[in-house]
Amino acid sequence: MMSLGKIAVLSVLQTEPEEVKLLDQSLPSGYKVYKSKVGSMDSAKIFAAIETAAKREGFISSNYREEHALYHSILEAYHGICRGNAGLGNVLRSAGLLYSIVRGPRTVGCADDGEWIAVALYGYMGAPMKGFEHEVLGLGMNPI
Amino acid sequence: MMSLGKIAVLSVLQTEPEEVKLLDQSLPSGYKVYKSKVGSMDSAKIFAAIETAAKREGFISSNYREEHALYHSILEAYHGICRGNAGLGNVLRSAGLLYSIVRGPRTVGCADDGEWIAVALYGYMGAPMKGFEHEVLGLGMNPI
Amino acid sequence: MMSLGKIAVLSVLQTEPEEVKLLDQSLPSGYKVYKSKVGSMDSAKIFAAIETAAKREGFISSNYREEHALYHSILEAYHGICRGNAGLGNVLRSAGLLYSIVRGPRTVGCADDGEWIAVALYGYMGAPMKGFEHEVLGLGMNPI
Amino acid sequence: MMSLGKIAVLSVLQTEPEEVKLLDQSLPSGYKVYKSKVGSMDSAKIFAAIETAAKREGFISSNYREEHALYHSILEAYHGICRGNAGLGNVLRSAGLLYSIVRGPRTVGCADDGEWIAVALYGYMGAPMKGFEHEVLGLGMNPI
Amino acid sequence: MMSLGKIAVLSVLQTEPEEVKLLDQSLPSGYKVYKSKVGSMDSAKIFAAIETAAKREGFISSNYREEHALYHSILEAYHGICRGNAGLGNVLRSAGLLYSIVRGPRTVGCADDGEWIAVALYGYMGAPMKGFEHEVLGLGMNPI
Amino acid sequence: MMSLGKIAVLSVLQTEPEEVKLLDQSLPSGYKVYKSKVGSMDSAKIFAAIETAAKREGFISSNYREEHALYHSILEAYHGICRGNAGLGNVLRSAGLLYSIVRGPRTVGCADDGEWIAVALYGYMGAPMKGFEHEVLGLGMNPI
Ligand SMILES: [Mg+2]
Ligand SMILES: [Mg+2]
Ligand SMILES: [Mg+2]
Ligand SMILES: [Mg+2]
Ligand SMILES: [Mg+2]
Ligand SMILES: [Mg+2]
Repeated sequence: MMSLGKIAVLSVLQTEPEEVKLLDQSLPSGYKVYKSKVGSMDSAKIFAAIETAAKREGFISSNYREEHALYHSILEAYHGICRGNAGLGNVLRSAGLLYSIVRGPRTVGCADDGEWIAVALYGYMGAPMKGFEHEVLGLGMNPI
Repeated sequence: MMSLGKIAVLSVLQTEPEEVKLLDQSLPSGYKVYKSKVGSMDSAKIFAAIETAAKREGFISSNYREEHALYHSILEAYHGICRGNAGLGNVLRSAGLLYSIVRGPRTVGCADDGEWIAVALYGYMGAPMKGFEHEVLGLGMNPI
Repeated sequence: MMSLGKIAVLSVLQTEPEEVKLLDQSLPSGYKVYKSKVGSMDSAKIFAAIETAAKREGFISSNYREEHALYHSILEAYHGICRGNAGLGNVLRSAGLLYSIVRGPRTVGCADDGEWIAVALYGYMGAPMKGFEHEVLGLGMNPI
Repeated sequence: MMSLGKIAVLSVLQTEPEEVKLLDQSLPSGYKVYKSKVGSMDSAKIFAAIETAAKREGFISSNYREEHALYHSILEAYHGICRGNAGLGNVLRSAGLLYSIVRGPRTVGCADDGEWIAVALYGYMGAPMKGFEHEVLGLGMNPI
Repeated sequence: MMSLGKIAVLSVLQTEPEEVKLLDQSLPSGYKVYKSKVGSMDSAKIFAAIETAAKREGFISSNYREEHALYHSILEAYHGICRGNAGLGNVLRSAGLLYSIVRGPRTVGCADDGEWIAVALYGYMGAPMKGFEHEVLGLGMNPI
Repeated sequence: MMSLGKIAVLSVLQTEPEEVKLLDQSLPSGYKVYKSKVGSMDSAKIFAAIETAAKREGFISSNYREEHALYHSILEAYHGICRGNAGLGNVLRSAGLLYSIVRGPRTVGCADDGEWIAVALYGYMGAPMKGFEHEVLGLGMNPI
């Protein structure tokens, strides 16, 4: 069964055209998904890219409540990719990431709990040297 | 394209029989996968369940090098589900999780970098009250 | 000027009857305040005491959205009193605390941003030995 | 009853002239208080502002013992406003803060435990966008 | 040249009778050293063992200032052995440690900065299984 | 008895020519040691200095497995010197350090567990002001 977090994670994991198409077709009604990429040694750039996209793509209204929900979701996903040692450039590592933003019910058909926003980050983190990196994944979500 | 982390995460995300079958069929050679579940307010139980399964299922040899690689992979995945606030029962929350253990090359066909071990955790974390919980996901990996 | 966090913090700081009375009288409309105490070496007991009081006193409705907002507010306040080293009994220290729960607008008259919930913790933390302790304070808040 | 931490926190919370006057009048003997403000996305600027003021205003002697006590008090207060996720600009958030430095006995009349130094931080933290921020508070103290 | 931290660390590292003798002989005047061992999966036991020994051996006077300095030194050394993931039994690992407590000037002959207290922890941490463990070391110090 | 971590730590602690000579002479076969120094308020410079030296001195082969083991060892040692508050310049402190890199068996003669790599950091951390600093020590190690 589909759910908010699963949609967010599958969106960043599946890059083959047929997979993406399949995921789009199986997207339950009530969910809005955006997917893009960002890479940096400067963690603030990751936060900024997602915040900017979320506003431009209409995932959050122009009020602090919604921005706050998005921000904490990014922060939680960021902790997921950092795995206990928050930081990128300051500990000499870089991240090349796909991210997804998903807005919709926490679980399919669970209308009485309102809308939530999820952020997933997936990609590679490692030394700033080609191929010296491994996969990382983070997921965060909050009611919006 | 498949890779160690993607296999670990898709394994815990896909629970429908047809999905599981599809994933099994698309598993590149050289990878070994195990999947099970564990739930607790006591984080040590999550570590113990995965350690025990990994030994019983032959994912690690009986030496410290390999156990150490597995342990740190669990620890990193655990940080992913905790998102910056390590702890379960001590901060009054509980986790119901699927976990996967995957052993194989870091990326398909990347034989010259040896074998790695990945652990993925996916499920729900929240108040110890039915339905008061949301999805969490963590991924950790190390050379073995 | 009054605001959500200031009300929460003043509520736990002021214990003299005349101060409490003054604070009650100056409470802007739209705010609901509850204040009590909890002490323990077991951090889960602090979370449980506040969650239970919040439900019993009608600060949150019986849905996960609101419980989630309360939970994260407690967690943030808890980090405030722990100051970088989350934990109580596990690092051999104990806390004797007053806590407050406040629900209302983020700032007085700021109606367009909905309601928020704040938790403040104030008291003494230290060795489990009379008088070997110093003051600590934590504040957390989230939209509800 | 007054105490070191309470004085530090009330000092940053009370901004109305009459409140400030009241607090000054009720300040028990033996306490020295300084209050100012600092705002930045660069956490080092917050540390520097408080260190500089403490030296200039005579809160610490020119020796490492006292500077060390002040530094750790700032660090603990900083953890309080960060609530488990240390960092400002690196996680794309900014802080506009009032801070207080207080030196005196841990509790009024408790002369046999020497002098302590407390630092309180209170203000707003959030996105670098007007009004997209909420209150934060941190308190740290050490024997000096 | 000898210094507080170096004395604390050498004390826990050197276990051969001739090394211990050499260290005792080279101990500069003004330093007091105690050394013992503690092992547990329960981190509180490590704190308790050191606190108890420090009191019994006269390293701290019976006041909170000195106990506070000792406590924070233990806490800092504990972070050193935990290396970013505070916890023992809760993350299914155990520690078998030698610890030292040292009181004296921060550096030899540096009398104008008063006395400091240092705690060093050295030993093995790992799975609760014989030989599945590696060395860890932590050092903390504070003015007393 | 000698072991990987002890060699790493003694290497950074002992600076007198006769101590260094003694340590060199007592170095069990199978161990390779490098020792140098680095100082900065920018933590990335510490990571970079050690990574560069390890490559130049032949401590790691040119593959990600080995670089990964080194990186995590540096990261763990870095946590040791930071003692729960990761960061240098961002919390207005600076570090002047000696570091050692050691490669060899985890314990002398323990050949069946392969080679490990250890990193030790020792020196002074404190305010960016001469003499306002105290000793810190960190140790990290991983199988390579
Ligand atoms: Mg949550
Ligand atoms: Mg890694
Ligand atoms: Mg917030
Ligand atoms: Mg303290
Ligand atoms: Mg210090
Ligand atoms: Mg390890």
